[in-house]
Amino acid sequence: MRTTVCRRATFNAAHRLFNPDWDEATNDKVFGLCNNPNFHGHNYTLFVKITGEINPQTGYVMDLKIVNDLIKELVIEPFDHNNLNLDVPEFAALNPTAENIAKVIYDKFRAKLDAEFDVKIELYETENNFVIYPGWD
Amino acid sequence: MRTTVCRRATFNAAHRLFNPDWDEATNDKVFGLCNNPNFHGHNYTLFVKITGEINPQTGYVMDLKIVNDLIKELVIEPFDHNNLNLDVPEFAALNPTAENIAKVIYDKFRAKLDAEFDVKIELYETENNFVIYPGWD
Amino acid sequence: MRTTVCRRATFNAAHRLFNPDWDEATNDKVFGLCNNPNFHGHNYTLFVKITGEINPQTGYVMDLKIVNDLIKELVIEPFDHNNLNLDVPEFAALNPTAENIAKVIYDKFRAKLDAEFDVKIELYETENNFVIYPGWD
Amino acid sequence: MRTTVCRRATFNAAHRLFNPDWDEATNDKVFGLCNNPNFHGHNYTLFVKITGEINPQTGYVMDLKIVNDLIKELVIEPFDHNNLNLDVPEFAALNPTAENIAKVIYDKFRAKLDAEFDVKIELYETENNFVIYPGWD
Amino acid sequence: MRTTVCRRATFNAAHRLFNPDWDEATNDKVFGLCNNPNFHGHNYTLFVKITGEINPQTGYVMDLKIVNDLIKELVIEPFDHNNLNLDVPEFAALNPTAENIAKVIYDKFRAKLDAEFDVKIELYETENNFVIYPGWD
Amino acid sequence: MRTTVCRRATFNAAHRLFNPDWDEATNDKVFGLCNNPNFHGHNYTLFVKITGEINPQTGYVMDLKIVNDLIKELVIEPFDHNNLNLDVPEFAALNPTAENIAKVIYDKFRAKLDAEFDVKIELYETENNFVIYPGWD
Repeated sequence: MRTTVCRRATFNAAHRLFNPDWDEATNDKVFGLCNNPNFHGHNYTLFVKITGEINPQTGYVMDLKIVNDLIKELVIEPFDHNNLNLDVPEFAALNPTAENIAKVIYDKFRAKLDAEFDVKIELYETENNFVIYPGWD
Repeated sequence: MRTTVCRRATFNAAHRLFNPDWDEATNDKVFGLCNNPNFHGHNYTLFVKITGEINPQTGYVMDLKIVNDLIKELVIEPFDHNNLNLDVPEFAALNPTAENIAKVIYDKFRAKLDAEFDVKIELYETENNFVIYPGWD
Repeated sequence: MRTTVCRRATFNAAHRLFNPDWDEATNDKVFGLCNNPNFHGHNYTLFVKITGEINPQTGYVMDLKIVNDLIKELVIEPFDHNNLNLDVPEFAALNPTAENIAKVIYDKFRAKLDAEFDVKIELYETENNFVIYPGWD
Repeated sequence: MRTTVCRRATFNAAHRLFNPDWDEATNDKVFGLCNNPNFHGHNYTLFVKITGEINPQTGYVMDLKIVNDLIKELVIEPFDHNNLNLDVPEFAALNPTAENIAKVIYDKFRAKLDAEFDVKIELYETENNFVIYPGWD
Repeated sequence: MRTTVCRRATFNAAHRLFNPDWDEATNDKVFGLCNNPNFHGHNYTLFVKITGEINPQTGYVMDLKIVNDLIKELVIEPFDHNNLNLDVPEFAALNPTAENIAKVIYDKFRAKLDAEFDVKIELYETENNFVIYPGWD
Repeated sequence: MRTTVCRRATFNAAHRLFNPDWDEATNDKVFGLCNNPNFHGHNYTLFVKITGEINPQTGYVMDLKIVNDLIKELVIEPFDHNNLNLDVPEFAALNPTAENIAKVIYDKFRAKLDAEFDVKIELYETENNFVIYPGWD
């Protein structure tokens, strides 16, 4: 049966939520405090979950050290201690909500991993707010 | 792809588990300490998980502030600092097990949300015991 | 140097906060939702911290299995799955606030342990509210 | 609708990861520090998740006390405070990776539970590394 | 005996660590990634710990609702979803390290509370890094 | 006022508790399952807490990166993924109880740090059992 292996990591970043096509009043109404033009920030907690077959030679679906190295290359290096809006090209024209950050991370992993593996991203913006991409039906 | 957004909340309540159609000996055998007629209680931790499409205008599936306002209206206000058996009408004739509490909360959210959204409820009665409704196959 | 050994445990109980010498309006003003006459409840998390010398024969200050057995005898057996106001004699005339519960637990441990050991009780009523007895200066 | 009930438990064990068909250099390359011939160890955290119908008489899918008794019989008794490679027959010829430990635990529960119940095992080797069996698609 | 009551809260903020009296090379050497001029951010977790006598009328050292209201007024309102360097006057000329944030919060509580109460602030910048003010000897 | 800065880290190790001067029956009676001659293991969680003055130039008591580098050198490198009894010289003749592990770690830090700093070690062997060295009075 297919098996899922999961790796947790954290990164710290500043961000601001807004839609540049909207006026300030609309942005304030929709995004509230998250629209502070001076930015606020979070300790993001990321779970990368990869599903595949257990390799009978190793007992691994995929060595979690490899997953962790990918997390460092694809997420920590570009996102950690950065401003998502200003320092990360993927969010130059994409609102850095938790949903969109999870989608960006998913696309990076999907492009790196063989098709035999499924990927799921779980991203906590705070202890109370988190997202899963792709979502559960 | 569909995306799941999740909001965590907590509430504190007293309850007693028993079946009024059974005699005391049967209730004690089935429910043990949970059948204390003077009640016991829990800090319940609730996760409301809503699956839908990311709105390209906002980057949100649904603003988690809206989810949190619904949690306050549908769960915190009626359940928190109450006795589930005595103070909450849904449990007047329904045993307030974690399974049934999760189902009651699910039904309340299902009735409020548009059909385009799926809902899943995860409810922790203690750090060791929790339930998911609807369950995973 | 003296060393502190700590054991964590949990128990679930119902309680109500009120002062029987006060009228209902005063109790409601001071204790708010906690004054529900039908009770509410909590998962309490308890830390018992005992300070003494490391025994060079065992490398233990005190075997934490002994501490755990004391917790079961002094706290879990009388408090767990009970109503603190109705089922626990110590709170028949003492308001079961976290402060008073911690003091009652401290007194029970102090009476059981040799004078060479110091005791400190940390009690979480929720993840956000907890008390330490004796307190830190 | 089907509902999932979950029980958490922990056990502490030593293990070593290696493939006896490989030479030392290959084992070191694949398993790194986990191949220490003197063993290392973990506090494993286990979640057993059982999906079925809510029994209208009890409000339970399955009494979590029964699940906990099964965890004690099938997992804690044979695994806790043991060396998985040397003391647990299932791992005499099977590499005790988290994936394989989860599969072994799944098979034990699957053999004990009626076919009406689905089972899923989630096993944390550390706070950063965990596996789910069967995996999510 | 004196007793300590504790309240937990969280806030999310952006910040940048640097000393304006130093050149960029020195700031980079001392503060590394934390010196990103575009800011980064954190979910801060705050514990306010207040020590005093248990009031025999209430069983409280101090109603934790009062502590929580003070946290909202003194910390959440001015700090949450803000940029500590740009939006919070106390850090206009004070480097917003965890140590200095804790000291600023302590001074605000000390000014509000009667002298009979001792105050201690514990502030987590991440799950791995935190500070206590005043410190333990 | 003096301020405490804290850094968390984890390591995974095997160990066995016993006193070589005692016969097997006495060791079994005192150490029970912890005396398994094949070893068991833990994920240890370590907190290093250092108290000193805030440096007005940096806003730091001590850069936690320095504390983390010391943890890697003094604890992770020699202890992680090792067998404490067989691989770590300090425990060749010292029972690796949590108390003694904390004392060994304390002595290593005390030898490295200037006298102006106080050090306190908190070590979790499991989520339920932990020790503090030096202890609280």
